[in-house]
Amino acid sequence: MTRRQLHLNAFLMNTGHHEASWRLPESNPYASVNLDHYRNLAHIAERGTFDSLFLADGPVLFSQVGQRPSGALEPITLLTALATATEHIGLIATASTSYNSPYNLARRFASLDHLSGGRAGWNIVTTAGAEAARNFGLDDEPAHATRYERAAEFLDVALKLWDSWEDDLVVADKAAGVWGDQRKIHPPRHKGTYFSVEGALNVPRSPQGYPLLVQAGSSQDGRRFAARYAEAVFTAQQTLNDAQNFYADLKSRAREADRDPDHIKILPGIVPVIGSTEAEARQHEQVLEDHIVYEHGLHRLERLLQLEPGALELDAQLPAELAPESAIEGAKSRYTLIVELARRDRLTVRELIGRLGGGRGHLTFTGTPEQVADTIEDWFRRGAADGFNIMPAVLPSGLDLFVDHVVPILRARGLLRTEYGPRQTLRERYGLPRPDNQHTAALV
Amino acid sequence: MTRRQLHLNAFLMNTGHHEASWRLPESNPYASVNLDHYRNLAHIAERGTFDSLFLADGPVLFSQVGQRPSGALEPITLLTALATATEHIGLIATASTSYNSPYNLARRFASLDHLSGGRAGWNIVTTAGAEAARNFGLDDEPAHATRYERAAEFLDVALKLWDSWEDDLVVADKAAGVWGDQRKIHPPRHKGTYFSVEGALNVPRSPQGYPLLVQAGSSQDGRRFAARYAEAVFTAQQTLNDAQNFYADLKSRAREADRDPDHIKILPGIVPVIGSTEAEARQHEQVLEDHIVYEHGLHRLERLLQLEPGALELDAQLPAELAPESAIEGAKSRYTLIVELARRDRLTVRELIGRLGGGRGHLTFTGTPEQVADTIEDWFRRGAADGFNIMPAVLPSGLDLFVDHVVPILRARGLLRTEYGPRQTLRERYGLPRPDNQHTAALV
Repeated sequence: MTRRQLHLNAFLMNTGHHEASWRLPESNPYASVNLDHYRNLAHIAERGTFDSLFLADGPVLFSQVGQRPSGALEPITLLTALATATEHIGLIATASTSYNSPYNLARRFASLDHLSGGRAGWNIVTTAGAEAARNFGLDDEPAHATRYERAAEFLDVALKLWDSWEDDLVVADKAAGVWGDQRKIHPPRHKGTYFSVEGALNVPRSPQGYPLLVQAGSSQDGRRFAARYAEAVFTAQQTLNDAQNFYADLKSRAREADRDPDHIKILPGIVPVIGSTEAEARQHEQVLEDHIVYEHGLHRLERLLQLEPGALELDAQLPAELAPESAIEGAKSRYTLIVELARRDRLTVRELIGRLGGGRGHLTFTGTPEQVADTIEDWFRRGAADGFNIMPAVLPSGLDLFVDHVVPILRARGLLRTEYGPRQTLRERYGLPRPDNQHTAALV
Repeated sequence: MTRRQLHLNAFLMNTGHHEASWRLPESNPYASVNLDHYRNLAHIAERGTFDSLFLADGPVLFSQVGQRPSGALEPITLLTALATATEHIGLIATASTSYNSPYNLARRFASLDHLSGGRAGWNIVTTAGAEAARNFGLDDEPAHATRYERAAEFLDVALKLWDSWEDDLVVADKAAGVWGDQRKIHPPRHKGTYFSVEGALNVPRSPQGYPLLVQAGSSQDGRRFAARYAEAVFTAQQTLNDAQNFYADLKSRAREADRDPDHIKILPGIVPVIGSTEAEARQHEQVLEDHIVYEHGLHRLERLLQLEPGALELDAQLPAELAPESAIEGAKSRYTLIVELARRDRLTVRELIGRLGGGRGHLTFTGTPEQVADTIEDWFRRGAADGFNIMPAVLPSGLDLFVDHVVPILRARGLLRTEYGPRQTLRERYGLPRPDNQHTAALV
């Protein structure tokens, strides 16, 4: 039995997770559409023997182009380009169940899984917000519960499509002119509430059977969904205690759903801000905060909290009266996390924007490499995490620093692989079993 | 003024365009999901200084897996992987306007255009057949005219999305904290019959503005659509005379639509079967025909002609009474081409299957490299083609033979570039202008 290993995912985002990162002299303001930028990040992450890369996404132009770099390449497309530039690292793309059709999306993930030799992962999102809905023929976003209902049916259909080819279907008998065994094709013939999908997928079954299923919503609906489908979960947690509670809750939900709790890996997001001394790390952080345009942050925060423009003042705390999470149809758990963070630390709006500027609600670890490694190990050993979603404030330099200075400490402590070894699928990296095909599982 | 140049597109398909190609000893029956196979094909085509690569597609499992290799990687995904393995060649992916949403598809093509440095092309199809419709919640395929109506609105929306960022939007003023000029964002705010799309695309404008627009339907609806939108047209033509008529018709329709007829390039498909002597070429062809399973072809032909099973006999001609093209809701022009081919050459069903086995209605040129080059030059000079869609019967060997033996002759005759020269966009390769942005065109 090998020692329990830490799983690391590199959450790539343009010039970094800090909203002001693009303004630093080192940053390339055109990075979002630059293949070399992302190729470099992928190479750094492979140098750090990370399990995977990850790209967030929404089918909408989120931010004001006046304020900061906006737009991004579509994640499956970008990760396909990175698949050919890497050998070992997993490739996790976000895609929406609300604004895709199962046939097309199942096919694209199967294609990425083939092209990457079994390294594809899907971060399943339901996509909050009316703006996205209006890009797809709707007047407003579907209700939170409706989105999750559709997501569950989407997953059922996608799994039927991925399982529509048995693994050993192809016989390739040239002499007889028989390529495959037609009995091993299983068309979904699905007729449901949201989808009707008749035929089999038009891609042979991929190395992993289907992509690693990842989920990142922490609302009650999100947790139920994760317990049923997710093999890895990204989550934003501000304290060890909150993270332990979330971890215990999700593992126990997995058990209740008759799943091995070890087959759902939980990775809180952290924004490491690293300096050779604590003071240097704090200075890095200060430089970033000095580049925030607080007026822009104010408007974004008002939208996020579903308040009228002008409702917030920079140097006051949040209003005492705010809507309960149940009234929010958008990103429910993120809403609660932000409100609780502001209340707990009695932050002014300006301070709150400073904190959110770094990681949008994810925890910032500021300190020396030793201190960052200590916190990682602490959370890992004390039932708060199976690994971490690393979200550098500035890219590429923040990822470089993490790999050069924190990774060696984690390796020395026996927490992280020192090399990849032979080629593995993304599931194998995460220590997860290859899923059975629903049409053959009973026969095994 | 440089001499008029021939444009060559390599139509890649698994082990080749002949339906029996996979049964040859040289063929890899797993080629459809093999990146190395496609990478090798792309490198051969770049060695032959082709303008572009092309992948056909439909969101449905077309053939019986028992009969021949089935399924394929999704084209934009596969071409993205090939973008990183090539430097010069254009990358044309087929995608359906009937079974995609404009926001997602516009974004994926913009992403490929960025990742390839301006080498993306879109072969626009409306996707015939009830089987595809049933994978997307419909009971039957929409009528031919409806599909084209939706396609036209799809294009209008896609163009609005691609033009929603002006070229010079990004200012990247780090000191002022201003990334872009918000006035240069133009949300489509489209409300139409088939689509409502409110917001701007979430990808910065790509090198070409948008992908090269390619079309391949030759029905009346298809030609009208091509005259309005297409910059390149793939077509199946069986005789020089038919090809000349098609060419003249499309150029004149372009003129009527107030377009420069030289800005719509016409590329008939040809299946070159090459031997060092005519006899050797015929022998290659015979080997392929000997590997056809005629009973399979019979059933496919019955489906294609919308006949009852059992309506055709292998050693008889087609029935005298067949439905007129107007009654066909599927691939109209392909239907007529096949019926006319059979009638003209008085083919038995068996002979017809043999002819179609090679290129599904595209013309097979069988002969020596000189003879193939002669026919290409003849069609090119006599107003039948601006170039050719090269569809090797067997891959990779057929493409290798074409590049090693026909390409040098075309180069010696001054018809084809001898090297790529500096990097160019796909439009530049085809001698086409970069399209203006609809929001700035008037100001130029």
